[in-house]
Amino acid sequence: MAFLRGSLNYVWCTTSVLGKGATGSVFQGVNKNTGESVAVKTFNPYSHLRPQDVQMREFEALKKLHHENIVKLLAIEEDQEGRGKVIVMELCTGGSLFNILDDPENSYGLPENEFLLVLEHLCAGMKHLRDNNLVHRDLKPGNIMKFISEDGQTIYKLTDFGAARELDDNQAFVSLYGTEEYLHPDMYERAVLRKQINRSFTANVDLWSIGVTLYHVATGNLPFRPFGGRKNRETMHQITTKKASGVISGTQLSENGPIEWSTTLPSYCHLSEGLKTLVTPLLAGLLEKNRENTWSFDRFFQEVTLILRKIVLHVFFTNRTTSVEVYLEPDEQIDNFRDRIYLQTEVPIEKQILLFNNEHLESRVMSSSISKAFPTTTAESPIFLYSNDDNNVQLPQQLELPKFPVFPTNVSVENDASLAKAACSVGHECKRRIDTFTSMDMLMKRGVEQFIAMLITTITLLLKKTNHIENLLTTTLDYADAVKRLGNMTKNGHELKPILSKLYDLKPNFDVAADVIMQMHKRFVVEDALNDQWSSSMHGKRCPCRTRASPRAKYLVERLRDSWQHLLRDRATRTLTYNDEQFHALEKIKVLRNGDRIKTLLLDDVKPAVAQMAECLADWYKLAQTVFLKTQILEKDIRDYERKLNDLRDKLYHIKSEMKADESTRTNANNNILSKNMQKTLIKKCTNNTRKYWK
Amino acid sequence: MAFLRGSLNYVWCTTSVLGKGATGSVFQGVNKNTGESVAVKTFNPYSHLRPQDVQMREFEALKKLHHENIVKLLAIEEDQEGRGKVIVMELCTGGSLFNILDDPENSYGLPENEFLLVLEHLCAGMKHLRDNNLVHRDLKPGNIMKFISEDGQTIYKLTDFGAARELDDNQAFVSLYGTEEYLHPDMYERAVLRKQINRSFTANVDLWSIGVTLYHVATGNLPFRPFGGRKNRETMHQITTKKASGVISGTQLSENGPIEWSTTLPSYCHLSEGLKTLVTPLLAGLLEKNRENTWSFDRFFQEVTLILRKIVLHVFFTNRTTSVEVYLEPDEQIDNFRDRIYLQTEVPIEKQILLFNNEHLESRVMSSSISKAFPTTTAESPIFLYSNDDNNVQLPQQLELPKFPVFPTNVSVENDASLAKAACSVGHECKRRIDTFTSMDMLMKRGVEQFIAMLITTITLLLKKTNHIENLLTTTLDYADAVKRLGNMTKNGHELKPILSKLYDLKPNFDVAADVIMQMHKRFVVEDALNDQWSSSMHGKRCPCRTRASPRAKYLVERLRDSWQHLLRDRATRTLTYNDEQFHALEKIKVLRNGDRIKTLLLDDVKPAVAQMAECLADWYKLAQTVFLKTQILEKDIRDYERKLNDLRDKLYHIKSEMKADESTRTNANNNILSKNMQKTLIKKCTNNTRKYWK
Repeated sequence: MAFLRGSLNYVWCTTSVLGKGATGSVFQGVNKNTGESVAVKTFNPYSHLRPQDVQMREFEALKKLHHENIVKLLAIEEDQEGRGKVIVMELCTGGSLFNILDDPENSYGLPENEFLLVLEHLCAGMKHLRDNNLVHRDLKPGNIMKFISEDGQTIYKLTDFGAARELDDNQAFVSLYGTEEYLHPDMYERAVLRKQINRSFTANVDLWSIGVTLYHVATGNLPFRPFGGRKNRETMHQITTKKASGVISGTQLSENGPIEWSTTLPSYCHLSEGLKTLVTPLLAGLLEKNRENTWSFDRFFQEVTLILRKIVLHVFFTNRTTSVEVYLEPDEQIDNFRDRIYLQTEVPIEKQILLFNNEHLESRVMSSSISKAFPTTTAESPIFLYSNDDNNVQLPQQLELPKFPVFPTNVSVENDASLAKAACSVGHECKRRIDTFTSMDMLMKRGVEQFIAMLITTITLLLKKTNHIENLLTTTLDYADAVKRLGNMTKNGHELKPILSKLYDLKPNFDVAADVIMQMHKRFVVEDALNDQWSSSMHGKRCPCRTRASPRAKYLVERLRDSWQHLLRDRATRTLTYNDEQFHALEKIKVLRNGDRIKTLLLDDVKPAVAQMAECLADWYKLAQTVFLKTQILEKDIRDYERKLNDLRDKLYHIKSEMKADESTRTNANNNILSKNMQKTLIKKCTNNTRKYWK
Repeated sequence: MAFLRGSLNYVWCTTSVLGKGATGSVFQGVNKNTGESVAVKTFNPYSHLRPQDVQMREFEALKKLHHENIVKLLAIEEDQEGRGKVIVMELCTGGSLFNILDDPENSYGLPENEFLLVLEHLCAGMKHLRDNNLVHRDLKPGNIMKFISEDGQTIYKLTDFGAARELDDNQAFVSLYGTEEYLHPDMYERAVLRKQINRSFTANVDLWSIGVTLYHVATGNLPFRPFGGRKNRETMHQITTKKASGVISGTQLSENGPIEWSTTLPSYCHLSEGLKTLVTPLLAGLLEKNRENTWSFDRFFQEVTLILRKIVLHVFFTNRTTSVEVYLEPDEQIDNFRDRIYLQTEVPIEKQILLFNNEHLESRVMSSSISKAFPTTTAESPIFLYSNDDNNVQLPQQLELPKFPVFPTNVSVENDASLAKAACSVGHECKRRIDTFTSMDMLMKRGVEQFIAMLITTITLLLKKTNHIENLLTTTLDYADAVKRLGNMTKNGHELKPILSKLYDLKPNFDVAADVIMQMHKRFVVEDALNDQWSSSMHGKRCPCRTRASPRAKYLVERLRDSWQHLLRDRATRTLTYNDEQFHALEKIKVLRNGDRIKTLLLDDVKPAVAQMAECLADWYKLAQTVFLKTQILEKDIRDYERKLNDLRDKLYHIKSEMKADESTRTNANNNILSKNMQKTLIKKCTNNTRKYWK
């Protein structure tokens, strides 16, 4: 065990390297007494050449900082073999954000939740630095560590304060690490281009680095990309210094070619539209070179706090089979929510049917409720949006799939690993799309269930109400008859006539509505016709939940990654034996085969299956929406009848009260019988009404 | 690569051993053309000494078999260096059932679903053997492989047909593998005890092995355990041959001590009570030595089919915070379900409140529905059972936790790995209990939500109905007044009196009920008092969901397993360097520390927290149950009032119809005003009614 080193309380093995930098290396070690795993930073001979106070500054900075989002200092001890001081820190088992972004899974950036976590933790860590009057000066993904706590939660933590300085301490800074892509243009000028400049670096050199880092996290790419990459230093400097306000990326696609500027995040970025509209101005603010418009730290904290405190509501827009994330201020209400939905889906507010947990959202959320008090939604259990206006269902437009790399047949240990990595990256993109289609499948089905449940409740309540009104109407007619007879004996008789005629008029109209409701109840509640239609149209469909497309995709991506890892190991070995070369060639065959399989799964299986489901859904919704519209009309009519009935009854009561019981009686030949003319009119009206419900 | 071997289309490395047996070894290999991973069985020199036809029989058996639950034969090829034939089979990446049962996670048997999967697949594989007229003769967990398909599903497959014979081929069989625990007593006698016996082995030698295997899978232990284990052959033989019918296990706990017989599965077995009642007779049938009572193969298939076709309904019994699994025949109905619940919980049928998806189960399931058509339940989304009789809530009794092993301080590479494994086994048991408590936490909360939602729906509907009846009552009173006035003018007046008095009587009684309903609606729907009480009593409680106890337990068990693996590697190394010995000692410290932590988490954190929750739930349910009982009384009363009202109205109509409009009028001094006496009686009645609702 010649690789074992130690200090008073810790040992570490120099073969388990966690990271390497200009001043030293970081190894995984353990506490000799407890067995606790730690990270040990040792310094190389070069670093010891630095002035003593410069060396001490990293220790001093670390000792000052105590925050959940700063990697915790456990001890500073002496290497037992006289190699100088070592820094013992808590171990961040998730690696650095650099490693995470370097993984082919994240070639197009991190998922929304992880992006928000980085944003929150980076901001909180930076605030702690700021509160301690420190500038980090070397912020970049490699210095942001992913700590996984014992309860399985991710905490991002800042580390490596080798370049940190007290604010106003304007000592020359030289980027030792070759990660100049994240440097503020002024810093870049001095550290990379070695120009003398007379400006002092304020804390916002860190803000710029945060901006570049966040862009990288959101998209998987750097925002400023000169052709040829890092070597093209002049163009890099030009891009960052020439860029206009509001521009958040600049790319040079050919040698000496033009810079393509953009003020928006690229389409392949995974963030939701709702979050993009919040993040884009943040990035523009951070990547602001112009001193006058530069954000202050406080402004940065404030803007991030505004984003992070928002309430996210997950909506599934059924007519477009699309998940929509709506970011609301905590005190915004359902009207604001509907507004925001309109902006993101173009469904007008009055045409939005919003369902949650089998009922209208408004049954749960009062108009005065603030978004904090809304029910909790998730991507899997969202609010379902149906358009009352549009009975079609369309799949969302999809970006073209990135191309799988082409492998040359000869073995090249140098290239093959990179090509396999590129294949993994496409494989992951295929898997993400398959997962999205699978959740579409699930959400379409849930959306149908919700709509049916809502209709069943609506129709059942409507039928109950109708039965009650029927009962009331019968009683009122009897009542009217009694009052009429009384009227025959009194002088108030003439006032009764219009009331009675209205009442008689009400009855057959109401009966038509009641009959329609009974039929609807029979068809859509008792016989469950909407469910039947859906089930029979979906019968035997190869939907991705049923064909288990997601676990299949997971399997294929894992195999792609296995091959990539094999080729990576081969690259590390450099020269292969004859046998190893055979295995190397086999892995390339597997990459091609598995790449092909996952692509086929997406394009020839899952995608057409979901398209077919969307067609079934469209057919089903044409009926369901008609039923819904009909219930709306019927609800209104039944309410009208109820109001009219109550009104007529009140009038009857009024007349009856005014009647003098001792007045003389008059007979009425038409008692209890409608005139022939009245009957004809009624039949005509009924027919018209029936037509209205079944149009 | 001296370890690389090959055949025409396959290569394998002799360092990647999957398994070793008496006739040969199984290695992981790959197809040279496709890179597909396979298992390659090679034969050792000893096996080649067997007669050629015996050697060929394994190949012949394999070639005959084509079934999902038999490991697939891919090829039989010649070793390129002349070592004889090799069998190439599909690779089962999940290892053998022996490996699975050997894992400390499964020290007390597999979980219910996995048990059922083994049962199903083992039975289907055996059926295929039987259909091909084959007896396996060496069935045991080591010959049952876990195949994980590309879509992530587990398929168990039979393998190793080295000992398989055609039925009636009664050739002597010698257990070469030393796994005699699974042998039928007759086989044991001949193969292990080397006695000459004159009985022929029928297919049910396999049934016995299946019985022992299933007992092992269900409990993690062998059913027949002589003191001293395998070496104690005579006792082993005694146990299996002397055991009575119905006995499924026999254990000897001390040297030459008595055998403890059992007819039931042990209490530590994880299977649900519902499943245990089905599996115990199955095991008793399989482990039947007595030739007269021995099951036939057909009987076995039939019994397993009966078990597997059952519908499982998951119930959470809130008053005992216990999950209950009910196994129903596919054509059984809700009455059978309630019967079965009574048997498993002792809650009488008429006292069972069953809720699913926020409503009474009966709203979804008609009494004629068969269990196949019941809504799908899962352990996380069960039917909630509340007792209408018992307003208390108690945690279920818990078995004592197995003891963590004590580590001697000196390093013993031989023992330490075994002790660490035992510690892992206890750690896994702690984790399982923490997970159970966590799901109790979740289910108690969901149960409360469901009950509240059900009450809100009930009260809301009741209020609606009450309002309708109020409206109807007002109208009927007006109507009565009109008829009364008519009556004053006619001779039918005297018939009216009792009807009117009943109607006047109804009004104040109904008003009391209506008032109570309105108050209940205000308190429990508008003000959501039940929710408030629950939230405020739960406020700040350390429930395991909130403290993330489950992921913590997962973390600690993973650490325990890491240490176990480290100590296992040390055991394989045998002699440790000084440094390695230090690390070895550290791992022991970690085992103790992490073992202690997971135990503390269970006993001092999670368990008291859930006990406290159960107290909150009990307090809450005392109120909630009262409210529920009250709504039941009110529902009945309101139905009564409605019936009475309709009845009175019909009588009024009848009288009115019979009245002759031209009769002379009579005045009634008491018109519209109740007598002093009647008023007194009414007030007394109302007070009584109020008391009834609020007792």
